[in-house]
Amino acid sequence: MITGRQCFLSSPQDQGPQLTTSLSQTHADAIAALRAVLPGDALLTGEEEMARYGRDVTGDHVGRPLAVARPRTVEEVSTIMRHCWQAGLRVVPQGGLTGLVGAAVPAPEGEVVVSLERMTAVRRISPIDFAMVVEAGCILEEAKKAADAVDCLLPITFGAQGSCRVGGNVSTNAGGFNVLRYGMTRDLVLGLEVVLPDGRVWNGLKVLRKDNRGYDLKQLFIGAEGTLGIVTAIAFKLFPKPTQVETALVGLASVEDAMELYARARRACSDLLTAFELILRDGIEVTLRARPDLPDPLSEPYPAYVLIEASAGGAVDLRGLMESFLGGADDIVRDGVLASSRAQGERLWLYRETMVESQGRGGRYLRTDVSVPISDIAGFIARALAAVRAKHPEAMPLAYGHVGDGNVHFNVIPPRGQDPAAMETLFHSAEELIFDVVDRLGGSISAEHGIGRVKQHAFLERIDPVSLDLATRLKLALDPTRILSNGRILPEDPVV
Amino acid sequence: MITGRQCFLSSPQDQGPQLTTSLSQTHADAIAALRAVLPGDALLTGEEEMARYGRDVTGDHVGRPLAVARPRTVEEVSTIMRHCWQAGLRVVPQGGLTGLVGAAVPAPEGEVVVSLERMTAVRRISPIDFAMVVEAGCILEEAKKAADAVDCLLPITFGAQGSCRVGGNVSTNAGGFNVLRYGMTRDLVLGLEVVLPDGRVWNGLKVLRKDNRGYDLKQLFIGAEGTLGIVTAIAFKLFPKPTQVETALVGLASVEDAMELYARARRACSDLLTAFELILRDGIEVTLRARPDLPDPLSEPYPAYVLIEASAGGAVDLRGLMESFLGGADDIVRDGVLASSRAQGERLWLYRETMVESQGRGGRYLRTDVSVPISDIAGFIARALAAVRAKHPEAMPLAYGHVGDGNVHFNVIPPRGQDPAAMETLFHSAEELIFDVVDRLGGSISAEHGIGRVKQHAFLERIDPVSLDLATRLKLALDPTRILSNGRILPEDPVV
Repeated sequence: MITGRQCFLSSPQDQGPQLTTSLSQTHADAIAALRAVLPGDALLTGEEEMARYGRDVTGDHVGRPLAVARPRTVEEVSTIMRHCWQAGLRVVPQGGLTGLVGAAVPAPEGEVVVSLERMTAVRRISPIDFAMVVEAGCILEEAKKAADAVDCLLPITFGAQGSCRVGGNVSTNAGGFNVLRYGMTRDLVLGLEVVLPDGRVWNGLKVLRKDNRGYDLKQLFIGAEGTLGIVTAIAFKLFPKPTQVETALVGLASVEDAMELYARARRACSDLLTAFELILRDGIEVTLRARPDLPDPLSEPYPAYVLIEASAGGAVDLRGLMESFLGGADDIVRDGVLASSRAQGERLWLYRETMVESQGRGGRYLRTDVSVPISDIAGFIARALAAVRAKHPEAMPLAYGHVGDGNVHFNVIPPRGQDPAAMETLFHSAEELIFDVVDRLGGSISAEHGIGRVKQHAFLERIDPVSLDLATRLKLALDPTRILSNGRILPEDPVV
Repeated sequence: MITGRQCFLSSPQDQGPQLTTSLSQTHADAIAALRAVLPGDALLTGEEEMARYGRDVTGDHVGRPLAVARPRTVEEVSTIMRHCWQAGLRVVPQGGLTGLVGAAVPAPEGEVVVSLERMTAVRRISPIDFAMVVEAGCILEEAKKAADAVDCLLPITFGAQGSCRVGGNVSTNAGGFNVLRYGMTRDLVLGLEVVLPDGRVWNGLKVLRKDNRGYDLKQLFIGAEGTLGIVTAIAFKLFPKPTQVETALVGLASVEDAMELYARARRACSDLLTAFELILRDGIEVTLRARPDLPDPLSEPYPAYVLIEASAGGAVDLRGLMESFLGGADDIVRDGVLASSRAQGERLWLYRETMVESQGRGGRYLRTDVSVPISDIAGFIARALAAVRAKHPEAMPLAYGHVGDGNVHFNVIPPRGQDPAAMETLFHSAEELIFDVVDRLGGSISAEHGIGRVKQHAFLERIDPVSLDLATRLKLALDPTRILSNGRILPEDPVV
């Protein structure tokens, strides 16, 4: 995985008169004052007890917590922010530390960490409203279980769901497997409770499905990576829990055929599709090498594979629907298997999951997360593969993704035993080649993961001046002294 | 229909040194300068030719255009705004003038109208991307036809679609019939092109389905009622065109039973529901009086009716689905009819459409557009009916709406021949009674229609100080001299 080291090594900026990041006497006094107003165990300041708040789960991104506040209520978050605002102490909010762009890791120069890990309550859940109100520190999987217990579905689904926290999902506008059917996290948020940089609480925690009273302020905080406020609670939209799931894996002659199949599937399956995941033959081989117990999934190898999932409630004949759709596509589907049970469906997913887990053979690899218009996916993959293979024949490019969302994870695995310096050079060069194709197709260099610190350089290289100006105005309108998550998305000292 | 007269009659505010609204010599010079840089027929200044830009389609809201600019390109919009910005001339963008809150009508003191009516092109449409790029002045129905021609669906659907323009749909975050299935207009926008108050063009016109590169700036302009920028083009998300539609009208014992039916329908129909419209017996009687040719729709009268519609693509057995759902709900569905043809389905819709058109008997009536949590709909209707009937036994309250969205249109029809002053008193009093119930249920006084000028008073009475401060900061961050659509949503002189 490529690290954000180049960002963390950037030279310290002039912080202006109000902000400083070293633990000056003033700040030591401010932290002492904070301790005085917070309950006994809410503030950590010991090096050892703070260590786990200073690095993310990958261990790639490391920073320095000046102190770690662990509030239990929105009032405590408000108190913390008010004190830090007045003292000019920089703050970073933190969830499950599973983000991939280093946004929640404190700055190397030091920041006060506000961990939401103690605000985990499901405040309210209503199957009639198809809505739940949950605190930001709740683990996604726990929130999903609470919804499931009332026969509802909170659709956000991805690998880190057992450790990420829902406040982080909102702050990064998380994507995942079910975007095709249910949208990004943004589409699932009905309301928010947010503590502003100056400590005021914005209460937008409503469960209304339609509300056109002026500006939709919650949109500001979704996907803002903690730079405009600290999300403390979320009202999520829920859906009926599907009672049927059908999973198929099919083999195709080309990525073009996969995209044609996608176009037909959307029409035939009436928005009941929940996943449409492209895997190339290389990816299947990664799985087969890592799991010799798994057979080649179809009778012979194919250049492209698609894992298709659809789900529905009780009254739809979903099996019949899938059979009729696949049967009608036999001019392009070369071979395929429609799972006969939930267990067999899970086995089909293993081909994708194993590929994702074992692609790097335990070592580092270049990981990208790009999107292009759906109609350009086949072209993007072909051009990016050709470019990387031509310049780096020693490396293995691997492309897969949520193609119904135009989202491709185009990764590059270095040759075994490559030395670290050569690997950095390879990653840098391959990323440039890939991003260049993305740029030419009007795509995004960050479809799901956000910007944080890791992608900031590539982001700022590409952003047009009007967008940069608008983003800077937003930041300064809400956080004029840049006390909150400074240096994420926008540079430390924004150009005004 | 209640008018916004109270807003238009508000006393003129101090506009500060930069802004003035009378046609001073400076402004006459500025308009002359504008004429010099625009093509021959792009600027109207004659009283007569400007008249139709000074009032909305209802005729309830009237203002004064200082001049009417009719640009054909985004560059011309940019030129107009740059000139007006420099001259301190206030501007209001205008679409089809079908909005219900007076936002697009120029101020009585005068504003330059920028009509988008000549920017009507469908710039691009791609059934593979399920996306289209269309200019802001395109009539919604024309955009829908263009989508239909490539077997796609642009789902925004409501009464004014034959005359409203898509820029206005975006600027008001239009709702309508299909929100249940496809979401509000906000959910359908992939990208925007916007001219900022200072004339710069923000190009966010992408068709990517996932893009997490920093703040999602397009969200600022959706539902902002033209106060933060002029939307000139939109990239819309499209859906597969349904090939099957099933429509049913059922009779029930109570609103509670209707809400129970809704909960079951969502689960049984797997998100294929496109409409779930509640009508009370009073509403059916309004239709039967207006259209004596229509029979009472079911074998006997029922307290509550629901019009249910579902749609799907080719491979779903939609008829079987609806039959099985309705058959399984025979413990609460007293009677019902499932349309046997598209023509019969349209006849069922006539009961609702006729009610909406004829409820006011050609005269004025109080019209509200509120939302509450779905679980509170039955309680809201019961309490609001009781309150209005107790205080105004002479008037007829009429409640109907998109109950799956928590959205009720709770209207009050005055007795025949009531004099205008008594009618104003009735409307004011009834609105207070209705809004009071909405407030107590944590609802919204504007689910779909927006704030504009008409609902500003009620909006500002209820908004909390933190929300008001955030909204004001947003406005000032983008439009510091308040040149664009000033006095809509926020007061003329925002509190800073």
